Amino acid sequence: MNIRTIEWKDNRIKMIDQRKLPNKLEYVYINNLKSLWQAVKTMKVRGAPALGAAAGLGVYLGIKNSKAKTYLSFKKELDRAAKYIATSRPTARNLFWALGNMASVAEKNRDKSISSIKKMLFKEAQGIIEEDRAACRKMGKFGAGLIKRNDSILTVCNAGILATIDYGTALGVIYRAKEERKKIKVFACETRPVLQGARLTTWELMKKGIDVTLICDNMAATLMRQGKIDKVISGADRIALNGDSANKIGTYSLAVLADYHKIPFYIAAPSSTFDLSIKAGGEIIIEERSKEEVTSLFFSKPIAARGVKVFNPAFDVTPNNLISAIITEKGIIRPPYTGKIKRLLTG
Amino acid sequence: MNIRTIEWKDNRIKMIDQRKLPNKLEYVYINNLKSLWQAVKTMKVRGAPALGAAAGLGVYLGIKNSKAKTYLSFKKELDRAAKYIATSRPTARNLFWALGNMASVAEKNRDKSISSIKKMLFKEAQGIIEEDRAACRKMGKFGAGLIKRNDSILTVCNAGILATIDYGTALGVIYRAKEERKKIKVFACETRPVLQGARLTTWELMKKGIDVTLICDNMAATLMRQGKIDKVISGADRIALNGDSANKIGTYSLAVLADYHKIPFYIAAPSSTFDLSIKAGGEIIIEERSKEEVTSLFFSKPIAARGVKVFNPAFDVTPNNLISAIITEKGIIRPPYTGKIKRLLTG
Repeated sequence: MNIRTIEWKDNRIKMIDQRKLPNKLEYVYINNLKSLWQAVKTMKVRGAPALGAAAGLGVYLGIKNSKAKTYLSFKKELDRAAKYIATSRPTARNLFWALGNMASVAEKNRDKSISSIKKMLFKEAQGIIEEDRAACRKMGKFGAGLIKRNDSILTVCNAGILATIDYGTALGVIYRAKEERKKIKVFACETRPVLQGARLTTWELMKKGIDVTLICDNMAATLMRQGKIDKVISGADRIALNGDSANKIGTYSLAVLADYHKIPFYIAAPSSTFDLSIKAGGEIIIEERSKEEVTSLFFSKPIAARGVKVFNPAFDVTPNNLISAIITEKGIIRPPYTGKIKRLLTG
Repeated sequence: MNIRTIEWKDNRIKMIDQRKLPNKLEYVYINNLKSLWQAVKTMKVRGAPALGAAAGLGVYLGIKNSKAKTYLSFKKELDRAAKYIATSRPTARNLFWALGNMASVAEKNRDKSISSIKKMLFKEAQGIIEEDRAACRKMGKFGAGLIKRNDSILTVCNAGILATIDYGTALGVIYRAKEERKKIKVFACETRPVLQGARLTTWELMKKGIDVTLICDNMAATLMRQGKIDKVISGADRIALNGDSANKIGTYSLAVLADYHKIPFYIAAPSSTFDLSIKAGGEIIIEERSKEEVTSLFFSKPIAARGVKVFNPAFDVTPNNLISAIITEKGIIRPPYTGKIKRLLTG
């Protein structure tokens, strides 16, 4: 299987429509900012690193046809595009990181011609994509060192090919372990309400020939009690300076359960997911999504009493004391986190 | 709202078809054993106490038209009916308890005429129903003593009207607290895969005017961490002599999370749910149900990769050390459980 979650092709963005999976592998082509915003908001593309790529390409999409004559008016257009993209989803750090990278490439080259700034922005957007591909492979290598033969690994949401460009963070570790011929077994939490585990993770793991078993989120504790889980690995959407990690709702629950059952709990995330401006997880903005995600099964028929109140946070924060290690492309970070995160990422 | 989950009416069993809720309140009428077995297996009726009622009425259904001339041949028919009902679902204790009660009523009256034994069996089946109605109200009264004004209560699955005859075990405690004019708020776990929380609990709590908010099962930990849950109350399907309690999958997970967040975790169950022949939870048979429950959203469109392996235990066991108290119709039992359970239930 050689698929790319998102790329620039034929002068527009090409991405897998992840809402159609696992029933259909379908691509959408995006040639304007509004469609990009919609694709992000409705989760045609999702996963922190893939959102970084979408944001980079999105900014380029927003300025590539600019008729601006001066840097200032060009920069205004770029900022407007970036600001608009920033309103799509608030939690994934990578999206804002990519927007920041794009803006600073423009700023650093403000003395160049608009057309060469455009070229540099295209190169930067491509660079974000290439950086992710390389980072995932490095994380895979570092992370696979933590995996033993015959390990049984629990994962949540989708932190794989479909959350990145073509390899994955948490699932990249699993792919690498398989490449190293370690026989492993994966349990995938279905990950309500949007079912990224059931729809995406099982799909890509099966395509990659990995032994995967699907469970409902509320079954993880039972597996742990039965001694069937050796490790938990998840991705992350934003990691604070102290290691507190925001990730898909349900991750915190798994971290507490892993702690109770004395099972290591790992996060795999590239440095673009770290937000050093945030000291601790409490400061991370948690997106709340529509109640229909919960009350209508994957946007189809109603499954709850009409008019019921719903609490639907899309993410939760796992405090650093529950995280055994964070796997990054620069190495594995173990507690205590604060100083080490700063050193590894800025050093 | 004055509804009855299951009753004997017009010479047959009348029950709510719980698979149709919350979209339609529809009744089914059952006049043969095979339909009853199907109704139990496919969860048109579910909930341990309601299954006890179904089993009692089912045995009566099985023998009411018996043409047996001798007690022995009559008893053979009764045993065959009971055995058949026993194969429907293995975990709920009440079902087997009711079957046992029916058999022993026949046995105790073996010297009477077949037609009077039939009458006694009908009376016994009705007695099981009346006993449940009374027990739920007593549990409600005892349990409400644990609830404070403005408490926010988390519950799982459906342990309400629809799991019993007309009041509920865990939700009976909530109804009683409301009758005592304690303002309370309920969070209902949707309870994958069959969504009894989303479909049944929200429906009946809203009908009863209780403030209820629906969450996905993986959101409970976040609410607990945010200090939004004061108590967790669940029902039970089978309770061992030492207090270990089997209940709907996900209950154990909530008990661990409650323990971690120092929140009391209560079980509400009538004495008919206790199985004194079982010393500890490990001996309880856990039903595994079809993979389609997980892979197809409430039996409709597929939501996981085709052919994926699935682990689908319908129940889990919460060990007694995680249970703050068990609310029964005979009083509240607190740890250590073994001696107290024996004394309260056999004394």
